[in-house]
Amino acid sequence: MTEAAFLAVDWGTTNLRAWVLDRGGGILAGRDFPLGVSRIGAGEAQRCFDETVRPALKAEGLPAVLCGMVGSNLGWVEVPYVDCPADLNALGRRLLRIEGESPPVLIVPGLRARRPDGEPDVMRGEEVQVLGWIAEATERRRGRRLVCHPGTHAKWVRVEDGRIEHFVTAMTGELFDLLRKHSVLPVRDGPDDDEAFDDGVRAAGDGEALAARLFTARSRVVGAGMPAARVRSYLSGLLIGAEVAATPALAGADPGEPVALIGDLRLCGLYRRALQARGVETSVHDGDDAVLTGLKALFEAERVT
Amino acid sequence: MTEAAFLAVDWGTTNLRAWVLDRGGGILAGRDFPLGVSRIGAGEAQRCFDETVRPALKAEGLPAVLCGMVGSNLGWVEVPYVDCPADLNALGRRLLRIEGESPPVLIVPGLRARRPDGEPDVMRGEEVQVLGWIAEATERRRGRRLVCHPGTHAKWVRVEDGRIEHFVTAMTGELFDLLRKHSVLPVRDGPDDDEAFDDGVRAAGDGEALAARLFTARSRVVGAGMPAARVRSYLSGLLIGAEVAATPALAGADPGEPVALIGDLRLCGLYRRALQARGVETSVHDGDDAVLTGLKALFEAERVT
Repeated sequence: MTEAAFLAVDWGTTNLRAWVLDRGGGILAGRDFPLGVSRIGAGEAQRCFDETVRPALKAEGLPAVLCGMVGSNLGWVEVPYVDCPADLNALGRRLLRIEGESPPVLIVPGLRARRPDGEPDVMRGEEVQVLGWIAEATERRRGRRLVCHPGTHAKWVRVEDGRIEHFVTAMTGELFDLLRKHSVLPVRDGPDDDEAFDDGVRAAGDGEALAARLFTARSRVVGAGMPAARVRSYLSGLLIGAEVAATPALAGADPGEPVALIGDLRLCGLYRRALQARGVETSVHDGDDAVLTGLKALFEAERVT
Repeated sequence: MTEAAFLAVDWGTTNLRAWVLDRGGGILAGRDFPLGVSRIGAGEAQRCFDETVRPALKAEGLPAVLCGMVGSNLGWVEVPYVDCPADLNALGRRLLRIEGESPPVLIVPGLRARRPDGEPDVMRGEEVQVLGWIAEATERRRGRRLVCHPGTHAKWVRVEDGRIEHFVTAMTGELFDLLRKHSVLPVRDGPDDDEAFDDGVRAAGDGEALAARLFTARSRVVGAGMPAARVRSYLSGLLIGAEVAATPALAGADPGEPVALIGDLRLCGLYRRALQARGVETSVHDGDDAVLTGLKALFEAERVT
């Protein structure tokens, strides 16, 4: 039997995902927990980890590497951001080892950058996916790439020669949730509707005047007879369409520059659809693979024993 | 003593405002009630009106003219929209008289229009303010004007020769409330901060990539030390700045075209500030005066007796 080497954890705002890996990076066990930092009480992270996560995976004796919002002021211990440009080595040098934990628990710092327009930006967790994706293939360590990680807070990341140079966060997923749950827009649950999504992408124009374009998700229903069942996909297309139209430029992208999408495959598929409608070439990459490659590289760099 | 002639009511989503007017339009009494259609139960409008609003203003014996969301599917009776272009006469011809109510109760229809970009749009209530404002001065009945009514759903209205030609709704106020109450942005209550508002207006750019610009209300705090106390005004400036940068063009405005602001005077002041930062000339007009002028004109046109 292959021996378990360490526990890899992506601990975000909403969920916690944990995997037991062997030395070669093979997955021996994996599990999701609804224990994101926004769902547990302040000061509860250690207890959650030791009393729930470790026992559920029979991982009491393993060193652990944790990334994501667990390193924020809402998490276990606040780990200072590493400034861009940064690669895996830069993160590895700044892992925070939690005092008193044995076996060792290491938290990956987040990244801070200045956008091309001068605004600050921050991330916690996505950097491990992006740098893990780079580590997956030698050719990704050279040249200039534009990476998008869709999600609650989508990240548009400029990669150069294997380093993250800077990035821009678009809170598109969060806006979608706010509008779906709390607004006057008549959003109902239902199956994905590709045609309504494409209508939304078109209605997004060039990504300007979003507050005015969003209202069409109501006015098309009450003023022009669009069925309310189509609103959810229409709204999704409108928000993603507005994001892909205007955010790459903020991140310093060349017009029409190809985009590597990394993350949840369903969400990557929606972004691919919206980018293709603008004639932009995309490639799609599984975020789980990427985060595990990144955490494994950080574990090895640290030589946790 | 001047004799009361009728009860004028602006019944919106959140609040209900009612005034007793004499034949000349003078205000004999006025009162606000927290009884907007979103706050009362379905089918409760009639009871609210007869048992709360009329007695509070000693207006049991007066005919009444009501405008706003009271004429929507959330209100008392759904009154079909009047299609643009439309003036006060067009609204007056389509007042809905509620059956069985004595003295008479009349509900003003809302407006429906097609935007220059082909999208449908709708309003209920603001049309009476805009058309009332036009009725206040003879010169407003000629020529082409751009009117903005800021609010939960801001309206950008193209007026030509005293008619509303078309309009665009921007759900800026609603976005502000959603982000303030439910988002990760660290918004705290506090006094208005002009400097933070102006920073937000600048950070809005030309109104594109809003979801990315909004995140700076967080990244400036966690990544660059902006005090959280400044976030509320910064966010307000960002949202209003994005609206005034890009929405007028959607409404068919000429670049830099002057804007007549009608509505709540504090909110009009914020829009004036954001428009001035873009070099746009504005005039500010009290929405209460305008709605009363409009309702009085509708009452007279109907000759309710």
